[in-house]
Amino acid sequence: MTRLDMRRIREAHEMISPLFRDTPQYACASLGKALGCEVILKVETLNPIRCFKARGTEVAISRLTRAEDFDPIKTSAVCASAGNLGQALAFSGRARNVPTVVVASAQASTNKLERIRALGASLRLVDGDIETARHEAGKIADHEGFFLIEDSENIDTCEGAATIGLELLGYPDDLDVVLVALGGGAMATGIGHVFKQASRQTEIVCVQPAGAPAMTLSWRAKKVIETPTINTIADGVAGRCPIPEVLADLLEVADDTILTQESSLIRGMQLILEHTGLVAEPSAALGVAAVLEDPPRFAGKRVAFVLCGSNVDPDHFHKWMQQDLESRPVGPLSDLDGAINR
Amino acid sequence: MTRLDMRRIREAHEMISPLFRDTPQYACASLGKALGCEVILKVETLNPIRCFKARGTEVAISRLTRAEDFDPIKTSAVCASAGNLGQALAFSGRARNVPTVVVASAQASTNKLERIRALGASLRLVDGDIETARHEAGKIADHEGFFLIEDSENIDTCEGAATIGLELLGYPDDLDVVLVALGGGAMATGIGHVFKQASRQTEIVCVQPAGAPAMTLSWRAKKVIETPTINTIADGVAGRCPIPEVLADLLEVADDTILTQESSLIRGMQLILEHTGLVAEPSAALGVAAVLEDPPRFAGKRVAFVLCGSNVDPDHFHKWMQQDLESRPVGPLSDLDGAINR
Repeated sequence: MTRLDMRRIREAHEMISPLFRDTPQYACASLGKALGCEVILKVETLNPIRCFKARGTEVAISRLTRAEDFDPIKTSAVCASAGNLGQALAFSGRARNVPTVVVASAQASTNKLERIRALGASLRLVDGDIETARHEAGKIADHEGFFLIEDSENIDTCEGAATIGLELLGYPDDLDVVLVALGGGAMATGIGHVFKQASRQTEIVCVQPAGAPAMTLSWRAKKVIETPTINTIADGVAGRCPIPEVLADLLEVADDTILTQESSLIRGMQLILEHTGLVAEPSAALGVAAVLEDPPRFAGKRVAFVLCGSNVDPDHFHKWMQQDLESRPVGPLSDLDGAINR
Repeated sequence: MTRLDMRRIREAHEMISPLFRDTPQYACASLGKALGCEVILKVETLNPIRCFKARGTEVAISRLTRAEDFDPIKTSAVCASAGNLGQALAFSGRARNVPTVVVASAQASTNKLERIRALGASLRLVDGDIETARHEAGKIADHEGFFLIEDSENIDTCEGAATIGLELLGYPDDLDVVLVALGGGAMATGIGHVFKQASRQTEIVCVQPAGAPAMTLSWRAKKVIETPTINTIADGVAGRCPIPEVLADLLEVADDTILTQESSLIRGMQLILEHTGLVAEPSAALGVAAVLEDPPRFAGKRVAFVLCGSNVDPDHFHKWMQQDLESRPVGPLSDLDGAINR
């Protein structure tokens, strides 16, 4: 039993603007040939915020404004974000006249911070990483009475992300595996919950960068393990302090967790660009990275990849695209990683 | 009066696999800021053939197989293609058990030719350009009794493409301009017909590369003008011999035609990649190129851009992305063109 509920997930789907739902899902034969499995893409990047996170904020803000005690004058919403959730909250708040505050690390991607501002949120920067920002967002919520959207802890963010699973269930063929990027856990528990309810034989495999492994280590140990540092280009999934309730849900629905190397993420982004014509941010390449590091495990299977975001700094992206990884053998590529971690 | 019909276009929409219809359409504020107008994107690249052309072949093959005199044993379909229509026909034929033959120039993009083969069509290569391939496809149809899908002349290809217009009509705000890539004319007459029927004030502006201007010159002269050569990287819209019936339709529905320089196409592809996270093939960048060459004309308007395909040779694409055009003044960039035509 997770905290999620299929009826509420179906209701959540109705609350999401058509801009963010019923996204393309299709077989990409060319990427499948490169990876040695049948590749089903779920593309979450073609919308005004270039990522899936608005599924959660649409639900959160819809439920907030429909609540009986909702006060349109006094209510503001706040979240901490590495960039994507902040854009999502800004978008959903603006669409429903709810002022929003986004707390971000001053080291967050400039590109993402600019977009949060452009969408009309009030941006507060903190020294430190995403965990510092989470702490600050909690304080703001306490002191100023704002509605706090804590990614993955807030059930709306999980049930919003779960609507991706609902749509994937509609794919004409049964899926053997769904590869889900693992950060705080909203997407993994959301999609996982849906499949464990409706298509139990589909393996839910979560993928996290080895440089930010807190949730994976926690899942494996079956208890919260915090990590001291973050060392990955996949800013969208980089956290150090798993939330106990989310871990409990993840233990119910994930069949496995995989840690990947940074070089595989870069090679994954290259392959996605070449075979699908899409920019993937590093978090969106985690699934491809997992297959690159262990092809036999997925060989011949029908595997869904959720391309969850495309918010990258153009300069970083061009640099990644130009790295020559192609001639390296497929497999764990940790020998390269010293050079490409930032 | 064009050859197209709104009732048939609505029926056509139902014949198209969900894989190719109801594609993302949304405002892209970041690209809008770069171009000085409100940018509405219509994204046709997230499907198994990475372009819009299956809308037409889905309709053509559906109507063919539903016809009373359809003989499932004897019937094959044939088309000439620079690559995209061939992939589309192969896909739609395979899905409905209709064997397909695609005639292409031996100089066509290797990438596209490989994909046509992978989709199961029988590929026949000819020496010469797309017009030679069209001639050969016509001969095959005559001699072997195959069903000929002549792009733009075949009404199914126009009405299939018109379904893009049908979906754009559903955009929540009225569009001031729709910029449509102009090649043979199926997409321009299709989308144009829909808007002239249902939203007459929306300007339909067709954009063609100056290196393959036959249809534009014909539209301006109000009579068919053939051109001797093709000199553009936009292979998807490169023709020399406009079809009289299509020109007649285009004269009914197009408000204007614009010719763009090759350097603007490349700059357009760069901007699309940066601001939307999408690979655009050159034909899909024609609209952005048109705005880059004449920003005042579109300033402040709500302009829809149909990103019609993303089939590019990866090596060409990387080369284009690395060209330094950014520092050049906006405006006609013909001085650069000698260097970048292939």
